[in-house]
Amino acid sequence: MIETPHRLLVSDLGEFGLIERWASLLGPAGADVIAGIGDDAAVLRHKGSELLLVTTDMLVENVHFRLDLISPEQLGWKAMAVNVSDIAAMGGEPAFAFVSIGMPAHTPVSFADALYQGMKQMAQSANFYIVGGDTVGADKLVISIALTGRVEEKFLALRSGAQPGDALVVTGTLGDSAAGLRLLLSGKAEARFQRCIDAHLTPQPRLPEARAAVATGAVRAMIDLSDGLSGDLRHLCAASSVGALLSEEDLPLSAETREAARLLGVSPFELAISGGEDYELLMAVDANRADEVLKAVSSVGRTRAARIGTVQTAQNLLIRRHSGETVPLAVSSWDHFANP
Amino acid sequence: MIETPHRLLVSDLGEFGLIERWASLLGPAGADVIAGIGDDAAVLRHKGSELLLVTTDMLVENVHFRLDLISPEQLGWKAMAVNVSDIAAMGGEPAFAFVSIGMPAHTPVSFADALYQGMKQMAQSANFYIVGGDTVGADKLVISIALTGRVEEKFLALRSGAQPGDALVVTGTLGDSAAGLRLLLSGKAEARFQRCIDAHLTPQPRLPEARAAVATGAVRAMIDLSDGLSGDLRHLCAASSVGALLSEEDLPLSAETREAARLLGVSPFELAISGGEDYELLMAVDANRADEVLKAVSSVGRTRAARIGTVQTAQNLLIRRHSGETVPLAVSSWDHFANP
Repeated sequence: MIETPHRLLVSDLGEFGLIERWASLLGPAGADVIAGIGDDAAVLRHKGSELLLVTTDMLVENVHFRLDLISPEQLGWKAMAVNVSDIAAMGGEPAFAFVSIGMPAHTPVSFADALYQGMKQMAQSANFYIVGGDTVGADKLVISIALTGRVEEKFLALRSGAQPGDALVVTGTLGDSAAGLRLLLSGKAEARFQRCIDAHLTPQPRLPEARAAVATGAVRAMIDLSDGLSGDLRHLCAASSVGALLSEEDLPLSAETREAARLLGVSPFELAISGGEDYELLMAVDANRADEVLKAVSSVGRTRAARIGTVQTAQNLLIRRHSGETVPLAVSSWDHFANP
Repeated sequence: MIETPHRLLVSDLGEFGLIERWASLLGPAGADVIAGIGDDAAVLRHKGSELLLVTTDMLVENVHFRLDLISPEQLGWKAMAVNVSDIAAMGGEPAFAFVSIGMPAHTPVSFADALYQGMKQMAQSANFYIVGGDTVGADKLVISIALTGRVEEKFLALRSGAQPGDALVVTGTLGDSAAGLRLLLSGKAEARFQRCIDAHLTPQPRLPEARAAVATGAVRAMIDLSDGLSGDLRHLCAASSVGALLSEEDLPLSAETREAARLLGVSPFELAISGGEDYELLMAVDANRADEVLKAVSSVGRTRAARIGTVQTAQNLLIRRHSGETVPLAVSSWDHFANP
């Protein structure tokens, strides 16, 4: 990382000074990058046999994040991670990232450097490059990332392939991120809840797990959990014209989230079902081969996967409670405009 | 366009309602789009023989545009046009656009529709599709576009290929957009200056001209004029490790910009040299074949190109004044942070 006096502001370096600085901080890109930062557009080689994936996400200060709750490194990591999660959810691998940032002229350069450092760490851990973007003035911090990826046609996992009878499989544990956010907001972010805090601030996109899962050939549809299990299940089922029955007792919950839910006075199942930003994967898989998919996910060595329900013909969403009662699933997901 | 009551707000439709609405407004995409709006990422076919181009631009309310000076249709057109101009400046053709928009919850849906309508018009006129993006809440309007493109390797025009002795060629006329902005800001936007106003509000990216120029094989380097002639010439020369000598009397000026400059009490040459947002193309071309390039640009039938100077070995920028005197070129270009 470039050493910098703490009080140097982005206005001291200017737009082109910043671009040069970050190009140097990010380092040389791979052989497939013919022209990166510093031309009118990036010029890239793309393997002709693979499909091109592109995902974009915009994060706005005080809407998606609060700078008193997240460090700039963590924010950079997370902003990139949510895009990586989208590429993973297609069965693909990330290739090239483009980072557009709007920020006030009085932003310290050290803050901006840390933001890029976090993004670079995510890029390095998932083996891709940041090769372009835009840097502009703005009242509040805005981060807009475009990430390209590649996927072999046979591994492509759309939302729309789920079939009645498929097993619903989810990676990791659910609700950790929502618990982490609530702990941070209520000043209860104790060390024993580190798992929840980390899940919220520095989510780990399930890229190797997704690749291992699609390689089995048994994944029929996939989506990443950004809006929350119920909301994203609704998206997957709507795209596939199917319904689903979840089993409450099969929802994977961490001990930390159960404990945090007790402390917060909320239901851990509510966190698991409605809490957003888990960035785990929800898949519809051939029920006869569900065990293969669970094994493939475990084989990565970072987390496990669990069967949590079944795809059904009737286009509604149900959940079987612990009590044995089957009821409609309450769907709630984050909406930027309906909850202004 | 979908009919809509004027007072319907984006908060009334919600994020997913808006996404569905725009997917419908934008209409079906081409055969190379395997999945567009409505999955975790867009899935696209890319011809293996061509290089992939990606450009991104972020526009922020009250920094890049003022909503009292530009209509939402014009803003949508322009936001997309500046990205098309970047792809044109590489010698390529646009392929797929991704539009991320941050906007207040109380934005009228009719405003948002008009913005998309303007973007769609630009996309249709340049034969590409809007296939994805993101829609989020924000205090001020923020538009972040990522545009992919394709270019045959033999037609790729980087900034870095200029050689001493090359002719500097520019399309169209210079300073129209800067004159238009000044007229708008000073309340002097009279009908006789429509050319300048249009150049500022609805720039025409020089896509067919760029394609015709690179097809001659005589273009060695190219950049689009967004920061202003002097600033962009500096970028091109720095990337090519060369200098340049411009000829003031050869700078192409429209009669409208000359007249506007008189009215505004500024030099029309100053507008041509320092005024930004012309979105014309600046090329370094083989001097022996410059006429071929001029002819290729004219053949499109929309505008002409002019020789305005020569690439030189000495790495400084000079201009020969009308007086015959040769002086250093004053370089000024827009900087978001140095001019907060």
